[in-house]
Amino acid sequence: MKIEAIDLFYVALPEIKLAADGTQDTLLCRVRADNGLYGWGESDSSPLVSLAAYVFPMSHSNIININEALLGETVDSVEDVRRLRAKAGAYGLDVQQLDHAVAAIDIALWDLVGKHLEQPVYKMLGYDKAHPKLPYASVLFGDTPDETRTIAEGLRGRGFAAAKFGWGPMGHGTAENDVALVAAAREGMGQHAQVMVDAGVVWGDDDETAYDRAVRFSEYDISWLEEPLLSEEVDAYKRLTDRKPPVKIAAGEGADFYRSADDLMLNGGIDFIQIDVGRTGGITVSDRICKRAQELGIQYVNHTFKSHLQLAASLHVFAGVPQFRLMEYPAGDSPLILGLTAPTGLPVNEKGMVDCPEAPGLGVDVNLDTVRKYLQRVKIEVNGKILHETPEV
Amino acid sequence: MKIEAIDLFYVALPEIKLAADGTQDTLLCRVRADNGLYGWGESDSSPLVSLAAYVFPMSHSNIININEALLGETVDSVEDVRRLRAKAGAYGLDVQQLDHAVAAIDIALWDLVGKHLEQPVYKMLGYDKAHPKLPYASVLFGDTPDETRTIAEGLRGRGFAAAKFGWGPMGHGTAENDVALVAAAREGMGQHAQVMVDAGVVWGDDDETAYDRAVRFSEYDISWLEEPLLSEEVDAYKRLTDRKPPVKIAAGEGADFYRSADDLMLNGGIDFIQIDVGRTGGITVSDRICKRAQELGIQYVNHTFKSHLQLAASLHVFAGVPQFRLMEYPAGDSPLILGLTAPTGLPVNEKGMVDCPEAPGLGVDVNLDTVRKYLQRVKIEVNGKILHETPEV
Repeated sequence: MKIEAIDLFYVALPEIKLAADGTQDTLLCRVRADNGLYGWGESDSSPLVSLAAYVFPMSHSNIININEALLGETVDSVEDVRRLRAKAGAYGLDVQQLDHAVAAIDIALWDLVGKHLEQPVYKMLGYDKAHPKLPYASVLFGDTPDETRTIAEGLRGRGFAAAKFGWGPMGHGTAENDVALVAAAREGMGQHAQVMVDAGVVWGDDDETAYDRAVRFSEYDISWLEEPLLSEEVDAYKRLTDRKPPVKIAAGEGADFYRSADDLMLNGGIDFIQIDVGRTGGITVSDRICKRAQELGIQYVNHTFKSHLQLAASLHVFAGVPQFRLMEYPAGDSPLILGLTAPTGLPVNEKGMVDCPEAPGLGVDVNLDTVRKYLQRVKIEVNGKILHETPEV
Repeated sequence: MKIEAIDLFYVALPEIKLAADGTQDTLLCRVRADNGLYGWGESDSSPLVSLAAYVFPMSHSNIININEALLGETVDSVEDVRRLRAKAGAYGLDVQQLDHAVAAIDIALWDLVGKHLEQPVYKMLGYDKAHPKLPYASVLFGDTPDETRTIAEGLRGRGFAAAKFGWGPMGHGTAENDVALVAAAREGMGQHAQVMVDAGVVWGDDDETAYDRAVRFSEYDISWLEEPLLSEEVDAYKRLTDRKPPVKIAAGEGADFYRSADDLMLNGGIDFIQIDVGRTGGITVSDRICKRAQELGIQYVNHTFKSHLQLAASLHVFAGVPQFRLMEYPAGDSPLILGLTAPTGLPVNEKGMVDCPEAPGLGVDVNLDTVRKYLQRVKIEVNGKILHETPEV
């Protein structure tokens, strides 16, 4: 197959709220081959900035856009997908945004080639069998402990046996308030559920406060404390984990490329590495990190706060590894979560687990009506020449 | 002072050539305060992608653009500049391009506040005195050893006592050709000059080949072998440096944020850390890396392949440290190197050294005629609303 077109769609809700809620917009990529097959992918970043990485004018031989690297290329095999990911990386070597942006088309190429080879992506990655995952509902803390309890009760009512609460007021008030938030989450979820806490990098490089909260939160039996510190403060992670806090430490969503994740695993002492396939350069790079985590005996888990298209891409990466059992599962009500896939996304089965699709490629398709409804029309011009204009859906 | 305007100018030569030559375009940032003072900065990346990072629509509370973070802010002191750098970082936490993009305004804010405080930037960074640096001419290899020799002879004729040759055919032909290129550079520069080799990440993660070339090149007394491997292949750097190659190893231009540079220093075993102030988040972050290099006993050197505005920003970061003696000095003939500053850039003095400006701020000003001449007019629209249009120079 030859890559005939790369279509980029920026979709967004009519009103964007000032909360750490990544399900308010997204960038979709549809790659079309000359035989009529197509694949879809999604990037988790600023849609406009990632879109610019596909169309910017050349600066020199290490600043060439993704379209230029990939349009017209041949893609028939897993080796081709890996080769093209490397080619786009070399063409855009000196563009920082490359990893976030290229994720969308990398995912779309795995989807496309999977359809061509009639294989689900997890098999293309070398696994024989997909193992069901335990979804944890991923939500934001309420503004108060009471609101948090209500949210937790709602999730419990929907049958979730695990949930993560993050951001919002965590770390912005007193230590007592932080504890009250966690206590409310536990209370609402009940004593048998798995509860995780996402501190949203609020303590920066302050491992003392992070340690203090880890001790206080441990009373509520939390499965991990996520991102107590900034992603790049690996030394602070090391100081924290060297003290053997009484809860497990998770991080990784801020890792934009392989080494950044490996650095956290090797030198940060974390227990869970959380990878966002739509940021860390797509399935190709996430797969490398997942295999590295297996070598190192660290738990790999997806970071996903986007649609079920993204969720499927995330899941294929580690579906084949039975010991990686948990899966982040966006549980909000944005129409850009479940509404972007058709006919369905990845439902929770009767056993409370999520199965990886067995259909070719990612195994989910995009709902074009949703794309049309929330489409943002972008136009980028340099010297009157149009570099990008939103294509027809 | 209040930040009243952030003006972004994308300038480029009429024809962009397919070579690793970063002096063919750039992104300039002028920040204007309400008291009439202004500062200038420059980013080294795709100008369009970095520009998008100043104007993109909000996605959620961690994807907010740089203009929104900084317009209207108060900036009177060094502490304010650091605070605003952190604020822009938090607003754009989930936008990978942030570090490349924010570099331009971070530099501009140091320039602005330096003018306000009537201090050169190096003093604002805590140093008493600026030490002259030995400039090494930074050029690309010729296509053949003969062309390389001619380039080297030209530099020698211009009085350069040090020069670095990079990219081009290096690593793309036989080992013998690689050696012939280095031999020609040495021959052209003469036996007393310092000669460095920049392999342009050509051997990826192949430390065996990198070691082989280090041994072969050592015969020509080179001061360092730069970027034999990809920036993120820190384990491969470690394997290479553990074998104690007979030449020093330099890397760092691919480090987009503090930890990435620190990782190379701590875990890669390199001898020289090369920081591009226009990529690694500006003067604020480069200063942190420079001080870390002092702690670790590693040589800090600027990476600069842009204008003399960028060169001045680079120099202030390490001007106060006498033991960091070398300075990359772009020596090509692009009008975007020397032509962007007025009345002059940073000349080589009669002793063959470069002095750091003592005038307030960066100590160089921008030549607006050059900006006007090479200006690229950019327009970005979403749903018919103009998010960016090139302002008046």
